[in-house]
Amino acid sequence: MKKIVVALGGNALGKTPLDQIEKVKHAAKPIVDLVRAGNEVILAHGNGPQVGMINLAFETSNQVSETSPAMPFPECGAMSQGYIGYHLQNALLAELKNQKLNTHVATIITQVEVDEHDTAFQNPTKPIGRFYDLETSNKLAKENGYDMVEDAGRGYRRVVPSPKPVNVVEIEVIKTLVDAGHLVITVGGGGIPVIKKGNEFIGVPAVIDKDFASAKVADLLDADLLIILTAVDKVKINYNKENETSLDDITISEIDKYIEEGHFLKGSMLPKIEAARSFVEAKKGRIAIIAALEEAHEAINGKAGTIIRN
Amino acid sequence: MKKIVVALGGNALGKTPLDQIEKVKHAAKPIVDLVRAGNEVILAHGNGPQVGMINLAFETSNQVSETSPAMPFPECGAMSQGYIGYHLQNALLAELKNQKLNTHVATIITQVEVDEHDTAFQNPTKPIGRFYDLETSNKLAKENGYDMVEDAGRGYRRVVPSPKPVNVVEIEVIKTLVDAGHLVITVGGGGIPVIKKGNEFIGVPAVIDKDFASAKVADLLDADLLIILTAVDKVKINYNKENETSLDDITISEIDKYIEEGHFLKGSMLPKIEAARSFVEAKKGRIAIIAALEEAHEAINGKAGTIIRN
Repeated sequence: MKKIVVALGGNALGKTPLDQIEKVKHAAKPIVDLVRAGNEVILAHGNGPQVGMINLAFETSNQVSETSPAMPFPECGAMSQGYIGYHLQNALLAELKNQKLNTHVATIITQVEVDEHDTAFQNPTKPIGRFYDLETSNKLAKENGYDMVEDAGRGYRRVVPSPKPVNVVEIEVIKTLVDAGHLVITVGGGGIPVIKKGNEFIGVPAVIDKDFASAKVADLLDADLLIILTAVDKVKINYNKENETSLDDITISEIDKYIEEGHFLKGSMLPKIEAARSFVEAKKGRIAIIAALEEAHEAINGKAGTIIRN
Repeated sequence: MKKIVVALGGNALGKTPLDQIEKVKHAAKPIVDLVRAGNEVILAHGNGPQVGMINLAFETSNQVSETSPAMPFPECGAMSQGYIGYHLQNALLAELKNQKLNTHVATIITQVEVDEHDTAFQNPTKPIGRFYDLETSNKLAKENGYDMVEDAGRGYRRVVPSPKPVNVVEIEVIKTLVDAGHLVITVGGGGIPVIKKGNEFIGVPAVIDKDFASAKVADLLDADLLIILTAVDKVKINYNKENETSLDDITISEIDKYIEEGHFLKGSMLPKIEAARSFVEAKKGRIAIIAALEEAHEAINGKAGTIIRN
């Protein structure tokens, strides 16, 4: 039996509620296969398209209706955890029953602590919400203190920082559930970003990378394995070139060489590689795998994906 | 040590995010007092104003923006659980730390099973969302199959049924957390209403009364005590009349007499009384209390509120 943290991308979850209900069924099968094989499974997931949709609904509604309040971004993230968790836990429960397993499923509203001195706060890079014209953009910057950037000729968008996870506020709760044999859904969208002020946690408008948050959960739970599921079958070097090569099994020192050589795309494969690296580096024997959603089960048996070792 | 389910009204949570952050601090104090006194506490809460706000944002946004999808009502409920849970768990965590307690807090996204043959489905009564003119109302009824009713001259509103809770899907998860000594937030808004179809739970547009859902949780956990917190200090008979009398301590047979005599307002005190009654009736020794939020701690010591006994 292994303790496995599975990180699922927000793009695998669908753009609308009906779309999501279908997509989560597709995602549930390989995850339940891991449970049936006797593993303890913790599921982390992204929320990019979903929190974007929620944020957009509130921004739009707030502009046209007096009775619709502005909704801060951390609260939109909390909503997305409820919304995605509801669909995911339902799909997992159904698939568990289909496979005659009695495992229970819990979605935990999860806050992830970040450091207010993280340099990311000086350099917001993550675009959220809708596009605006220059005039509205300047107004939002002035009135709400938003950081706005021009986005490839399509208009202006708000950007928020992407700080690194420092701690998972609800980790003891997650441990209790995992130890009891339940399947836990946590750190949705990388977790609700909070900073500590005295005895309080204060939500901050930011996006924590879901792969880094997954690696943090895996580290705190001392998991054996972190699986980052994505749309590609393996990590590749010389990506999209004539000499493109898929990697089966790599070590940290090989990773460092490849990163230095610039093989991995920023905002795409690079954060996955770095998250995997941070998890395996911290303790001998840990393994991370980057694999396609459909091949999760084959991947933990060494038959698919890219294995990353210390 | 007692196992106590506390039911908190959605009106105690505030109408906007900023309002809610303040209100939950106020609610956290008496709840943490119960924890400090050595009790196991499970917190249930309403979501009327909050799910209304979320539903309104999506309805409004969906009408003016093509990229904003329609959001089904159960999904709005799931979002409200994340949104309210995030604020509640934060306020509770801060108050626990202020009182030097190490208790952890968990918000569980909770589905409550209802019976698709519940007669409530033939008679939708619970108004949700915004007011429409007659033309739009007829359009929504025709295109979306909504039940619409005229509301006191203010326009037309959608109504959904309010079926009784049959089971709490995540009850085993809640048990695990309670047994481990964590403070659990559950059945937000009465839970996300689902019906069972084969191995699947399907969300239905409905509102489960949060006091009945709280009584169901208390029953399934075999709690000692159910406290329904409200805006009044005690249950009253001859309410708002010259001979109005506050009740300190009543039995089921007295309740039945008062209900028959029409002392309790439908949609207000009556469901609280009926929920309390259903919990204490099922087992000897159980106690329910209806009390003001501020007097929760005094109430369990018999110094405030109305006690309901078998």
